Order: sequence, then structure tokens, then C-alpha cells
Amino acid sequence: MSVAGNADGGPGGGAVPVDLIGEAGRQWVANWGDDAVPSMVATTSIMRAQQILMARLNESLERFDLTFPRYEALMLLYLSSRGSLPLGKIGERLQVHRTSVTNLVDGLERSGYVERVPHDSDRRMMLAVITRKGRSAAEQSTRALNAVRFATSPLTQKDLDAITAVLRKLRADADGFAPR
Amino acid sequence: MSVAGNADGGPGGGAVPVDLIGEAGRQWVANWGDDAVPSMVATTSIMRAQQILMARLNESLERFDLTFPRYEALMLLYLSSRGSLPLGKIGERLQVHRTSVTNLVDGLERSGYVERVPHDSDRRMMLAVITRKGRSAAEQSTRALNAVRFATSPLTQKDLDAITAVLRKLRADADGFAPR
Repeated sequence: MSVAGNADGGPGGGAVPVDLIGEAGRQWVANWGDDAVPSMVATTSIMRAQQILMARLNESLERFDLTFPRYEALMLLYLSSRGSLPLGKIGERLQVHRTSVTNLVDGLERSGYVERVPHDSDRRMMLAVITRKGRSAAEQSTRALNAVRFATSPLTQKDLDAITAVLRKLRADADGFAPR
Repeated sequence: MSVAGNADGGPGGGAVPVDLIGEAGRQWVANWGDDAVPSMVATTSIMRAQQILMARLNESLERFDLTFPRYEALMLLYLSSRGSLPLGKIGERLQVHRTSVTNLVDGLERSGYVERVPHDSDRRMMLAVITRKGRSAAEQSTRALNAVRFATSPLTQKDLDAITAVLRKLRADADGFAPR
């Protein structure tokens, strides 16, 4: 997920793993000076970290018939006081589009973790309701992810807290909540 | 992209933006103790940061008829010494699957930024070659992204360097290069 890197490789290119984002940074300096380099490198590092974490999390969740996005939707329901939420609310909380919510809930329904039922007072509104089997999957998968520290190896708690603090500034700016 | 949060909202829920990941952290402590909380919060923060950055970058790139993943592929070609790369090498560098490379190159080809040509010595191997129009788009879009610091507002250089340093440890572990 590097934007550049030493793309030609050279003889036997690709044999020794290199820091592609570091390489991209050096090419950026050479072409455009160093003003934007810290931001380019940080942004592409976040993109690559997301790829790494998503792949690891999905692997950990496979035996529970879950992906990480489905896990997130399942936990929303698990932690809700009624064990159910309108589909629109799920999209709002996960900040994904309506079609993504439909896909997520379809997947959870196929696994028997969720059922769609019409809302009591407004029959046109659909609710996703977590099933007993869904509760059990939520608990087991959470224990598994807690045990592997949400795929963050080899980062220390100090590393994790540093990431959280910096990214909280970005989230507060984008999501409109008050920075601490 | 919070895994949990106060999903019920309450009266007028959703009116005041809240830190959903912070809320999720509090629910995690209440249900599972605090051992895994720093990792859960950091991982979901990275997922959300990726969403925020991708949306902002795609918006900045729209007028160049690019998305950020296409921009990354275009820059690989732009910065390569020959202005061309085998499709397989592009996938390797961007760490995406073959079908994703096909889609990226299809998109760039539709914009006139790239052409597919058979490799000189091995006609079965396809190369993506950057066009003159593609070079111009690469330069203009890079100037635009450099100017907005790759969508990282309001983070400071210190913030960015902290992210890069921590995530380098994660990337070195996952990608197999030597940590500094």
C-alpha cells in the first residue's frame, strides 16, 4: 500500500522485504521536497496498518463465521440494551452506507446470528435482533480478539495509547465531537 | 466504525456527536475488564482513521478523475524508471490481489492515464504504461495532495511522526522488513 517505493526492484527485486513506505518518502523528498513527506508517510502507514489489521482480524474471526465488519455490527447489537437496533441506526453507528448495512446484516442472518423483524410501532421500519446463537458467537469471538489484543502485536500499551491519542484528534475533527 | 458505543442513543440520540470509540472502550471495561481495551480502542481508531482519510483523499482526487487507490497505482508507474510495470509487480507493491490490480488499471485506462501493452520479451506478460496525460495527472494530483498534507488536518508534524514511528513497528512485523 505504498504510494511509490523503488518500483523497479532491480535484480531479484522483491526477494528481500523492504520498507516500501520509507522508500516512497525518499522518492517524495527527491521530487517534491520534504514539506509534505511526514503527512504522506503517516497517511499511507495508516492505510497499510488498516490492511494488516483487517487481514489478521478476519483470520481470527473465520472460525466464528465472522468478518471484522460483521463482528462490529454484531457487537453493536450485543451491547445494545434491547439486543436490537433499526438498520439505519446500525449504519449511523458504523458510519457505513445503507447497502453495506444490508450486506452485513445479510451475512449475520445467514450465520443465524441475527434476525430481521419489523418494528413494533412502525411496521415499515426493520430491526436487526441478535439471536441466542449470535450472543454466544459475540462472547466467544470477543474472548478470542481480547486474547490476541485485537491483532496489534508487537505493539506495546504505550504504542497503542499513543496511536489512540493522536487519532482521537483526527476523529474529533472529522466526526464533530469535542476534543479532550 | 466503533465496535460498540452507546448504541441505544436515548431521546434525540445522534443529535450530539459523541466519541463512539471512547464509549466502546467504557463498555469493554464494564464487560471484560480493561486488559484488552487499549488494543481494541487503537485498532478501531485505525479503522476509523482509514475511513476518514480515504473519504477526504477521494474527494480531493475527484477532479483529477482518480481515487486514492488509483492514485497509488499511478504514482508507482510515475516514479518507476521506465514508466511501466508488469501488472503482477503493481499488485505486489500495493499488496492487493490480482483482481484489484485489474480494476485499478481498468480505471486508469478509462481515464487515459495508462495503457496496457505486452512485455517486449515475454508477450504473455502485460505491462501497464503511464501515458503523457497520466504523467500530467500524477503531477497535478500530487501537488494537490501535498498542499492539503494528505488530508491529515488537524494533526501536527509531531503527531504524524508519532503515528509513523509506531505503525512502522507493526508494518515491520507484518511485512518482514527489519525494524529500525
